[in-house]
Amino acid sequence: MSNRALEHFGERYGSEGAAPRFEQWNPVIESLLGHRSVRRYAQKPLPEGTLELLVAAAQSAPSSSNLQLWSVLSVQDAERRRRLAELAGGQAHVRDCGLFLVWLADLRRLGDLASHRGAEHEGLEYLEMFVMAVVDAALAAQNALVAAESIGLGTVYIGALRNHPEAVAAELGLPPRVFATFGLCVGWPDPSAPASIKPRLPQEVVLHNEQYGAFERSIGALEAYDRLMERFYAKERMGVQGSWSRHSAARVASAQALRGRDRLRAALASMGFELR
Amino acid sequence: MSNRALEHFGERYGSEGAAPRFEQWNPVIESLLGHRSVRRYAQKPLPEGTLELLVAAAQSAPSSSNLQLWSVLSVQDAERRRRLAELAGGQAHVRDCGLFLVWLADLRRLGDLASHRGAEHEGLEYLEMFVMAVVDAALAAQNALVAAESIGLGTVYIGALRNHPEAVAAELGLPPRVFATFGLCVGWPDPSAPASIKPRLPQEVVLHNEQYGAFERSIGALEAYDRLMERFYAKERMGVQGSWSRHSAARVASAQALRGRDRLRAALASMGFELR
Repeated sequence: MSNRALEHFGERYGSEGAAPRFEQWNPVIESLLGHRSVRRYAQKPLPEGTLELLVAAAQSAPSSSNLQLWSVLSVQDAERRRRLAELAGGQAHVRDCGLFLVWLADLRRLGDLASHRGAEHEGLEYLEMFVMAVVDAALAAQNALVAAESIGLGTVYIGALRNHPEAVAAELGLPPRVFATFGLCVGWPDPSAPASIKPRLPQEVVLHNEQYGAFERSIGALEAYDRLMERFYAKERMGVQGSWSRHSAARVASAQALRGRDRLRAALASMGFELR
Repeated sequence: MSNRALEHFGERYGSEGAAPRFEQWNPVIESLLGHRSVRRYAQKPLPEGTLELLVAAAQSAPSSSNLQLWSVLSVQDAERRRRLAELAGGQAHVRDCGLFLVWLADLRRLGDLASHRGAEHEGLEYLEMFVMAVVDAALAAQNALVAAESIGLGTVYIGALRNHPEAVAAELGLPPRVFATFGLCVGWPDPSAPASIKPRLPQEVVLHNEQYGAFERSIGALEAYDRLMERFYAKERMGVQGSWSRHSAARVASAQALRGRDRLRAALASMGFELR
């Protein structure tokens, strides 16, 4: 492994983590392991053709049965950006980043194509097709994110576009059966506010062999992760209340804890997703 | 752009496609643009530590609020592989590939963690948390795929694990609130059966500016894509009946066209996903 990749590995799992057993490394792996979320951007134009580059990367991701059930929407208008930033809980980077992309689970195009051919498309009403479109959109978006980071750009996903799905759909002129799954900010990182690599759960917690392992086997590793994250929160002055375990559990304690996103099913129904 | 990346670009969009406007390229972009699905594998062991490398790449992907609502399950047992291949519609590569990974949308771990702390976790019953987990799993999987391809391994996703969700869950010992979203085959490509880069829709079809564009503006580009795919099907001897438009529309014509996946909602309900 390169020194840089080893350093990323150490930050990802904490310095107590076992050294990786793999020897392979290359610029791709180094770039993947070095991901961090960037929320502060420099006001500096992106290279010409960045959008086309990211779309080409996105379209190179696998798509289930090549149905290509996703679209991407680029928002540059300053006023629209400002309104989307508000809808996403007041995230200023939605307004300030160089490129703001909305990743759409899109059952509309195939439905319109079927209608154009005089064919039925009742299959689109089923949950399966929604899942397929959401997965297609996520795979595409992740390829775009990896491409952006490879040329030194910073990125962060905006899941909070799901806080007000109908308002976001109205802002973006989405027809029925198109769902703004999440946003993506892209831009040059502000050099005065460098972002850090966020530690993740030990591999043994997320990796299961042959069959799903019982929760009890993970308790020690989860406690170790809480200690690792406690140091990370302090170092980054994140002001997080309590341990990772505590505030993560709090995020799903009740419908209220979802801060409006408990309405998603009703919102999707009103947007033409039956989810049978 | 490198010659290799330009070549990938030409295969992705057809030689009539406009040359890309971006000058940037690097080994990451070259690797992303060069993706192809590999379904025939050489019987040759993977490098030591490949699994840990892929999991490190997967965990380096963004995760919504760092809740890490996904797990991955590695299946090596030959009999279990054989049974999963059958459940996935008889796909021999599930049996024959070097590494078979199942990507899990996992609301179980956080629920167990909350219970362990004596906390409620009613928020997990909502569709929002299911979407979050599916997206988390897809982002993680795509990073693993990109890492695997960067070292020369071939890959293909197996969405057909959703054909029989309960049987797959039983085979993998999944507890309630864990959903096998899709599988991933990884292995050395069989050099005697090289795979090709699959053309995708013209960028103008999937990319929208400021607001979602009407279907009518895409009709010409969709027809051009049908012609491009017709040549691809012939060249690859794929035996596809009719145009891409025709057989894609046929895939969603009715509940029956979903080949059992119209049951997904009922299956998920029986697996502990209320999706309120």
